[in-house]
Amino acid sequence: MQMDWKNWRHVTKLDPDKHLDQAIVDEVATSGTDAILLSGTLNVTRENLAELREQVQGYGVPLVVEPADPSGAVFDGVDMLFVPSVLNTPDARWVVGKHQQWFLNDPAIPWEKVVPEAYIVLNPASSVGRVTRAVCDLSPAEVAAYAGCAERYFHFPIVYIEYSGTYGDPAIVRAVSETVEDAVLYYGGGINSAERAAEMGQYADTIVIGNAVYEKGVDTLKATVKAVQ
Amino acid sequence: MQMDWKNWRHVTKLDPDKHLDQAIVDEVATSGTDAILLSGTLNVTRENLAELREQVQGYGVPLVVEPADPSGAVFDGVDMLFVPSVLNTPDARWVVGKHQQWFLNDPAIPWEKVVPEAYIVLNPASSVGRVTRAVCDLSPAEVAAYAGCAERYFHFPIVYIEYSGTYGDPAIVRAVSETVEDAVLYYGGGINSAERAAEMGQYADTIVIGNAVYEKGVDTLKATVKAVQ
Repeated sequence: MQMDWKNWRHVTKLDPDKHLDQAIVDEVATSGTDAILLSGTLNVTRENLAELREQVQGYGVPLVVEPADPSGAVFDGVDMLFVPSVLNTPDARWVVGKHQQWFLNDPAIPWEKVVPEAYIVLNPASSVGRVTRAVCDLSPAEVAAYAGCAERYFHFPIVYIEYSGTYGDPAIVRAVSETVEDAVLYYGGGINSAERAAEMGQYADTIVIGNAVYEKGVDTLKATVKAVQ
Repeated sequence: MQMDWKNWRHVTKLDPDKHLDQAIVDEVATSGTDAILLSGTLNVTRENLAELREQVQGYGVPLVVEPADPSGAVFDGVDMLFVPSVLNTPDARWVVGKHQQWFLNDPAIPWEKVVPEAYIVLNPASSVGRVTRAVCDLSPAEVAAYAGCAERYFHFPIVYIEYSGTYGDPAIVRAVSETVEDAVLYYGGGINSAERAAEMGQYADTIVIGNAVYEKGVDTLKATVKAVQ
């Protein structure tokens, strides 16, 4: 399977801890989304990951796992691993510490499948915002400065603006898009309509749809695909 | 001037805050050292940097500035900027925060001159150890795991084992050298003899001599050059 992940416009984020009927999975996988990202902060197990993987395989849609904490993550049988580092936290464990533990505990990391992501977490009330104590009260220039460092100093291939569960400020995503040159800019958070997909899709290279699949259904998912492709 | 910094075996670290007579600078610059690194945690000013730069220029030796905190650093007229990020600190400011401030404050960073360094600080009593609250009680495998992440996850071109002011554990440097593949491995701390230069030079790609210049003189410096070249 060709992994042209730099050209993905639309990614669907599914939580292995939430059950979806196979009929729904079938509609997700054939919606035109470019990839399915399995991502959950908690309760991702070998079993529920394998179950969801079985549900989505055979459609030719790339399957990516994105662990909140790589040191305890399960990666069996997936195509790629998107591994976040949170930049706007005071707690260095979420920048580099968990990664060091991962390296220490797993001598067989398949690096050819790993894509590092520079996360900038902007919803302080989200799980990831709370767990990492992310500093979210940032101006567009301050967020763009994190993004610029992520790209030019750390050479992250992905910069991810994460509003997790809430819709973000387009001015911030625009400022980041004007700063980032080579990194792929991801936006996630609160996209539950074609309009929002189109708005953030102006600035982000790739938009991520998560909760809308569970809360609004596959018709909304398909509308967001159409809005950016 | 050709900046083949990946092939440097011996670097001399000078502190702009400490005066050296021109006769000494002449001997340093013609010692065979591959580069002169201007680095001080405190009191590096535009003036003392310019003064030292004038002293060392004209010898054909590359001149590098390495700021402890890039957000307030002075880079005028130097060939390269080696910019550290400390990985083994609980305080994310030293991993990424200072760099974000730097990006925010300086829209004209000459990125073509910037080489990011992944610092692993292993002397808790040193200035850098105290300022960054570095966690130094690490096994060889734990240090190597930081180094491996630095290279494979963050893509740092330099991994720097910094014992700043004290001589380190060769077993740790060896473990790092066995983990790192493409990154250039720097070792600094306590090299004040040909024997120590040779011992760390077995494992490190590049050794850094600092205090010995001031404390033991240029004959010792020259002996360390011979030991690794």
